[in-house]
Amino acid sequence: MSAELNMQRPRSRSVGPRQDGINVLRALAMDAVQKANSGHPGMPMGMAEIAEVLWQRHLRHNPANPQWFNRDRFVLSNGHGSMLLYSLLHLTGYDLPLEQLQRFRQLHSRTPGHPEYGITPGVETTTGPLGQGISNAVGMAIAEKVLAAQFNRPGFEVIDHHTYVFLGDGCLMEGISHEACSLAGTLGLGKLIAFYDDNGISIDGHVSGWFTDDTPRRFASYGWHVVPNVDGHDSDAVDNAIRAAKSVADKPSLICCKTVIAKGSPNKAGTHDAHGAPLGEQEIAAAREALGWAYAPFEIPTHIYEMWDARQAGSIYEDAWMEKLASYATAHPQLSQELERRMSGALPEELAENIRRLMARTHAKAATVATRKASQEAIEGIAPFLPELIGGSADLASSNLTLWSGSRAVTSTSGGNYIYYGVREFGMAAIMNGLALHGGFIPYGGTFLTFSDYCRSALRMAALMQIRSIFVFTHDSIGLGEDGPTHQPIEHVATLRLIPNMEVWRPCDTLETAVAWAAAIDRESGPTCLVLSRQNVPYQNRDPDAMANIRRGGYVLAEPEVEPRAVIIATGSEVALAIEAQRVLEGEGVPVRVVSMPSTTLFDRQDADYREQVLPVELPCVAVEAGVPDIWRKYVGRRGVVVGIDRFGESAPAKDLMRHFEFVPERVVAAVKSVLALKASDSH
Amino acid sequence: MSAELNMQRPRSRSVGPRQDGINVLRALAMDAVQKANSGHPGMPMGMAEIAEVLWQRHLRHNPANPQWFNRDRFVLSNGHGSMLLYSLLHLTGYDLPLEQLQRFRQLHSRTPGHPEYGITPGVETTTGPLGQGISNAVGMAIAEKVLAAQFNRPGFEVIDHHTYVFLGDGCLMEGISHEACSLAGTLGLGKLIAFYDDNGISIDGHVSGWFTDDTPRRFASYGWHVVPNVDGHDSDAVDNAIRAAKSVADKPSLICCKTVIAKGSPNKAGTHDAHGAPLGEQEIAAAREALGWAYAPFEIPTHIYEMWDARQAGSIYEDAWMEKLASYATAHPQLSQELERRMSGALPEELAENIRRLMARTHAKAATVATRKASQEAIEGIAPFLPELIGGSADLASSNLTLWSGSRAVTSTSGGNYIYYGVREFGMAAIMNGLALHGGFIPYGGTFLTFSDYCRSALRMAALMQIRSIFVFTHDSIGLGEDGPTHQPIEHVATLRLIPNMEVWRPCDTLETAVAWAAAIDRESGPTCLVLSRQNVPYQNRDPDAMANIRRGGYVLAEPEVEPRAVIIATGSEVALAIEAQRVLEGEGVPVRVVSMPSTTLFDRQDADYREQVLPVELPCVAVEAGVPDIWRKYVGRRGVVVGIDRFGESAPAKDLMRHFEFVPERVVAAVKSVLALKASDSH
Repeated sequence: MSAELNMQRPRSRSVGPRQDGINVLRALAMDAVQKANSGHPGMPMGMAEIAEVLWQRHLRHNPANPQWFNRDRFVLSNGHGSMLLYSLLHLTGYDLPLEQLQRFRQLHSRTPGHPEYGITPGVETTTGPLGQGISNAVGMAIAEKVLAAQFNRPGFEVIDHHTYVFLGDGCLMEGISHEACSLAGTLGLGKLIAFYDDNGISIDGHVSGWFTDDTPRRFASYGWHVVPNVDGHDSDAVDNAIRAAKSVADKPSLICCKTVIAKGSPNKAGTHDAHGAPLGEQEIAAAREALGWAYAPFEIPTHIYEMWDARQAGSIYEDAWMEKLASYATAHPQLSQELERRMSGALPEELAENIRRLMARTHAKAATVATRKASQEAIEGIAPFLPELIGGSADLASSNLTLWSGSRAVTSTSGGNYIYYGVREFGMAAIMNGLALHGGFIPYGGTFLTFSDYCRSALRMAALMQIRSIFVFTHDSIGLGEDGPTHQPIEHVATLRLIPNMEVWRPCDTLETAVAWAAAIDRESGPTCLVLSRQNVPYQNRDPDAMANIRRGGYVLAEPEVEPRAVIIATGSEVALAIEAQRVLEGEGVPVRVVSMPSTTLFDRQDADYREQVLPVELPCVAVEAGVPDIWRKYVGRRGVVVGIDRFGESAPAKDLMRHFEFVPERVVAAVKSVLALKASDSH
Repeated sequence: MSAELNMQRPRSRSVGPRQDGINVLRALAMDAVQKANSGHPGMPMGMAEIAEVLWQRHLRHNPANPQWFNRDRFVLSNGHGSMLLYSLLHLTGYDLPLEQLQRFRQLHSRTPGHPEYGITPGVETTTGPLGQGISNAVGMAIAEKVLAAQFNRPGFEVIDHHTYVFLGDGCLMEGISHEACSLAGTLGLGKLIAFYDDNGISIDGHVSGWFTDDTPRRFASYGWHVVPNVDGHDSDAVDNAIRAAKSVADKPSLICCKTVIAKGSPNKAGTHDAHGAPLGEQEIAAAREALGWAYAPFEIPTHIYEMWDARQAGSIYEDAWMEKLASYATAHPQLSQELERRMSGALPEELAENIRRLMARTHAKAATVATRKASQEAIEGIAPFLPELIGGSADLASSNLTLWSGSRAVTSTSGGNYIYYGVREFGMAAIMNGLALHGGFIPYGGTFLTFSDYCRSALRMAALMQIRSIFVFTHDSIGLGEDGPTHQPIEHVATLRLIPNMEVWRPCDTLETAVAWAAAIDRESGPTCLVLSRQNVPYQNRDPDAMANIRRGGYVLAEPEVEPRAVIIATGSEVALAIEAQRVLEGEGVPVRVVSMPSTTLFDRQDADYREQVLPVELPCVAVEAGVPDIWRKYVGRRGVVVGIDRFGESAPAKDLMRHFEFVPERVVAAVKSVLALKASDSH
């Protein structure tokens, strides 16, 4: 069937206003891509009918208020088809004027090459890296389901919306689609409806050479409701499929639409030439002819605008919801107040005080525990006062210590505040991003630090989107011991620090861990990685200044009696080692400062005066961290010494490994002496 | 059924020698994990019957020669069950003495926590990071199929072996299992046989809360032959399933075995307590009783050894194959010689000469092209003389330029030298690793550099295993233009360089690209990332010294007429910018050296004299690279300047972006002046 459809050429047809309303999507995609001389016309032209049916007959949204909380979410997982979304937003009345479409893919336009959250009103998530959009959508659908369970009351369905997703072959080939869609099936996300653009084409050509899945069967195996074999160019067939999907409340739906890529282009429809390049002036003229589209580039007649304008319908939707909300406020005043707070994203008023108590308690206890355990205690201290916190782990709950006493599982039949993600690191991270994007939640999720590699692209997307996902990465060094080099991070902390806008904390004890958690929750403009030890670390005594300065990312933890001659910088489990070395050096008459640097990313944003105060340029430096050394050169310079590891770990008990890799005071002491000797020789 | 099985407790039974031969696997796992006080007894105890049937009745291997080329490959994708594999290797006669089992998970033992390639004879790949073992196995099965197509002749099936895989729920939840198994179905890998250890348990408990896939249906959707509902503790049922699997030649097989985790442990069988912790002395005693295993820890009676010893059978297998090979050599002398070479891993004799020609041609042509195009030309120059080169791309062939004129697709019905991996970056990288591990191939595969994030863990595994996978990463900076920040690498080159044993090249022109390719092929002890531009870069003139020194990773590309006062280090597309800045500075009377540093990883391994010669410590330094700056501090120090990018990119034409992010000569010139001013003020 697919092959047949691919070969079928569009033909002249009698064109009615309805068809014009569809073809405007094709024309805008062709013309904008041509003008930019860059972009992807094939997908928008192939999915035009599907988009028209969904956006005109089903999608509940309000173009005048893209933030309306109960709107249906729409995710373009095949994000390269961005011009389709921009056209829909423009036509339905979002604040995206025509000149923005004309500036497609130009510097500082609101129409970048791929849809970007925060740049364009109505774009719910940044897509392009395939498979992540559908996974974000799973997170959004979980958010809707859990919020509904928490806030809806009989007669008051205040949270009640669908999440719609467009996706293509690429998304379905990506492994993350398996992770996210499998979990969506398990959780019975009935309000998630995905449209598979089954056009038989990917960049390399006809997919039959590399993608032969029976996709309906695959999704049935996940427990999805599948509508197979829909003609994606038959609007009524698509409409019927959407109705069928909406009628199934306990399973997500996949609507499999057979389409022709670049439909409407007489010579390029059904070919991969139309996927990612302009059609060319000549072919566009031929397509205009074939489609019966008589208008100039970017000319949109009034009747088309009228057909598409969704502002009035949108305000009716939102007004009705506001009314519902008002009567809800009367019937359930406390719940309503709390829902308002959750929707606004404001933190609970009592949180700050409880975090202060957590800090005081932590300081008083001065416990020697692993920082993963300290993290659990921080969650235990924070979560009761922060109901938007929604946790989880990729099947390592008892290792990551992400569960707390109030954790309740999200299941297919109930809300909760903890998601058993299964062994799905990438899916977890992208679902967390979807939860954060939806609003009403602050997601955290755990795995071993070494498996941050599995979900790295979703970490980057969180940083790019500037959203508050909190990643809990435990077992942070060779200190995890026997599991060996496959499980021992070496380069990971360093590489996470290099992702722009990623905050990374590697705390050294219970207090730094609590501060890291508090900072992660406070940080509205981006994600945080909490990098935590498997093994116990001692509590560090600090004066009040040092305590206050933890929140600056790096600070003087221990100052010698007399003027220091050198600085040892350390993080996490190596801070105790630095303190030991300091003591040995003190005994030998060498006064040394110890700087704890739990967050280099945060420290680097402090003012120059503060940074110079902590790390005076004239003091020689040694850095100690059980990871790759190069990253520390920015603090210690070319002539400082980094005590690190630049090879893979080994399988052995942790204490044996620490000796084997020489994380011992003697090595740090020798390093300090060597930088002092170098400095002395300089001044001769 | 699974729930029933989970509840069924092992009971005392009449124990025969056959049952002893199975229970020895359980005893060794319990005892070794207990002795190490660390490890995973549950899986080996649950898969003991399956292992016994496979290894005693089917697996064709020769313990005396783990390198026998035509052996069946066995991959433990659920690598945490390493003790099962170590027991099998010990019992069948590999060079893995009992004392090694007693030193399980200890420093420098040959029995690390997870199986490691290169450490233990008979371990075919390093496993532990879930889902990658099965994907490596897909690569091995492709290797077998393609080699067979290339070398077998009627009557001479010289390449003819199976690839067997054990995997668990974890592997099946991971997204990469979708990528690799979907492709395995498309390619019809009939000699790949996987055993699913369906024990209903993962680390967080009963999987029913997070993993409800109908796995047989899922694999049927991939085109696999599925044997569902096998009782994994019924040896004959397992045997029949294997026979059925072997009889299907055109589809990979999945044998779904219902098992009880930690079967034999009276109180912990069927629970997640038995997954990843020692059972405890008391429970082990109870299990001994229940199993009727009367022997002391690590005591293995002679009759058990006799039952398991596979050395004689193994030498019969290998001898028969050697005979076949000998008659093949008579019938097909040239093919046979070539097969011997391919199996030995030696490069063809004529290769070096042809690479020299490629270099000369490249130099003479002095072309201004993108380095991705230069890479294609290098492949075109090398591949005809290197038939073991097997290429591919994750659906970006025409962007990565990984195809060459001699590329022929590997399909379900034919061999070839190019794999259309589909949009499956992680699967691709792990399959490449499997091809390299099998032997007979040097795999290369492409995607956009930004999507190195999708496959990062497989890159790391290649580095850890020290195998020759060549990753072609194109579109290496904001220079890719309009696709925008989702597609623009910022931190990626830097983070790849931080993976231990990863060689990273970012060449600046056609000659450096050709040298990078030659070095990647020469490098037997690890993987290489080739980081390539989308946009054109000019050819750089060099003297013969400079040309020779490209292979040292960093070298003086352009020296001023008089003694240089500063150094500009640059890579890739920024080398031309450095040269421009040098010219401007020369005009202003400031002599500056330009160092091209295509491979920092290789440069760092040069002797100190050479490094000091290239980057004299007294010369102030500026580094220029369109990526995160911190990584360059090791060369420029704290007081040098790095011209880099520490935020995300933008969607716009490349030339606009280069201006926007200030990759312009003026900025480099200003940076050089600032480091010179700083140095001058120092000497006052």
